[in-house]
Amino acid sequence: MRVIVPFTARDPKTRLAPVLDADERRRFAFAMLRDVVDAVAAAGGTPELLVPGPLAPPADDLVDDSDADPLDDLPRTVDERPLTPAVNAALSRLGDGDVGELAVVMADLALATPEALARLFGAGGDVAIAPGRGGGTNALVVRDPDFRVDYHGTSYRDHRRIAADAGLSVDAVDSMRLSTDVDEPDDLVEVLLHGDGRSAAWLREAGFAVDTGGESRVAVRRPDG
Amino acid sequence: MRVIVPFTARDPKTRLAPVLDADERRRFAFAMLRDVVDAVAAAGGTPELLVPGPLAPPADDLVDDSDADPLDDLPRTVDERPLTPAVNAALSRLGDGDVGELAVVMADLALATPEALARLFGAGGDVAIAPGRGGGTNALVVRDPDFRVDYHGTSYRDHRRIAADAGLSVDAVDSMRLSTDVDEPDDLVEVLLHGDGRSAAWLREAGFAVDTGGESRVAVRRPDG
Repeated sequence: MRVIVPFTARDPKTRLAPVLDADERRRFAFAMLRDVVDAVAAAGGTPELLVPGPLAPPADDLVDDSDADPLDDLPRTVDERPLTPAVNAALSRLGDGDVGELAVVMADLALATPEALARLFGAGGDVAIAPGRGGGTNALVVRDPDFRVDYHGTSYRDHRRIAADAGLSVDAVDSMRLSTDVDEPDDLVEVLLHGDGRSAAWLREAGFAVDTGGESRVAVRRPDG
Repeated sequence: MRVIVPFTARDPKTRLAPVLDADERRRFAFAMLRDVVDAVAAAGGTPELLVPGPLAPPADDLVDDSDADPLDDLPRTVDERPLTPAVNAALSRLGDGDVGELAVVMADLALATPEALARLFGAGGDVAIAPGRGGGTNALVVRDPDFRVDYHGTSYRDHRRIAADAGLSVDAVDSMRLSTDVDEPDDLVEVLLHGDGRSAAWLREAGFAVDTGGESRVAVRRPDG
């Protein structure tokens, strides 16, 4: 399965600004991208980057600099347009007849495991969707050229409606890991609790820890300095 | 599989107070409980209530009053203690030898489906855990009398440690539906987007709707009056 991974390195993850500065957000975004690309490949997928411009990863941000960077040598498509038209252009290859299915997996699914992605790739339906928390579409598989994405607003509901309007079947993939896109400070707890890749290592290295504090939902804590 | 469903009708769901008054929170809590009990039974489980006192559901809160109330005739254990000791007392039946496994499923998993619960019941391990968002333990299956729960704090991590200390294997169940316990106003969006039972119907009847508003994560909206 070819798997499109949209990613932008231009001021990424702005909603993490309360806890990470711009350079940190960029490094953390690359750590998550590498985790996603690794998991896609381990699930048997063939990752391809969809980027708005040249990719310039921070030179020194690999957790273990003996690692090969999984971003090296990945196929990449450069498309300057916003996410929705860029993904739809990528999906148009389905109409050419040489590709029977394509997946789109967001680059901030830091909890994605090969097992969770294999469930997505193996799900049925003309369209298979892994919903994100709050009604987003974190990952999907498309098997029909009549389907188009629209990531604005409540995209999970919109994607179901777009599929229904085109007479296409939809399978939903029930995965906590794929539902967790890392956008806001509260999401970092999930990475610390359930992640075991570069993203979790990066956060720990940056001083983040789980703060139980007696609350029924836990927060992250980062000591000053 | 016998499935313990802890529930309290004493001022439930206090963190929903910003959007629901005390009577509404009680009615909504019962709607969620009924959804969970229905889903457990449809998944092949045998639900049993664990309550701190007599259960007195609002007389008029069934969405369709021709429905039979699934709470009628359910086995129930009354235990006045807090959640952790009450659940541990219930789990002590595993040591008696007449029960080989027990599940504990929280009463506020309004998105639980028979399919998601069947994955939990069918998971392997001496202990199978469906983690909640923020490090909680929303549902688990216990097959060894040496395991004890501790719901305080980051219970998912604590439960893994308790199991490891007792030499028990743990299987984690990756389910967005089981990870969504409905505690806070933001959680209501998930019920509206993914629920199709009494809880979602109750919220719609109470005037809640999904408010897309152009945000990347959506909120709930409840018109005044």
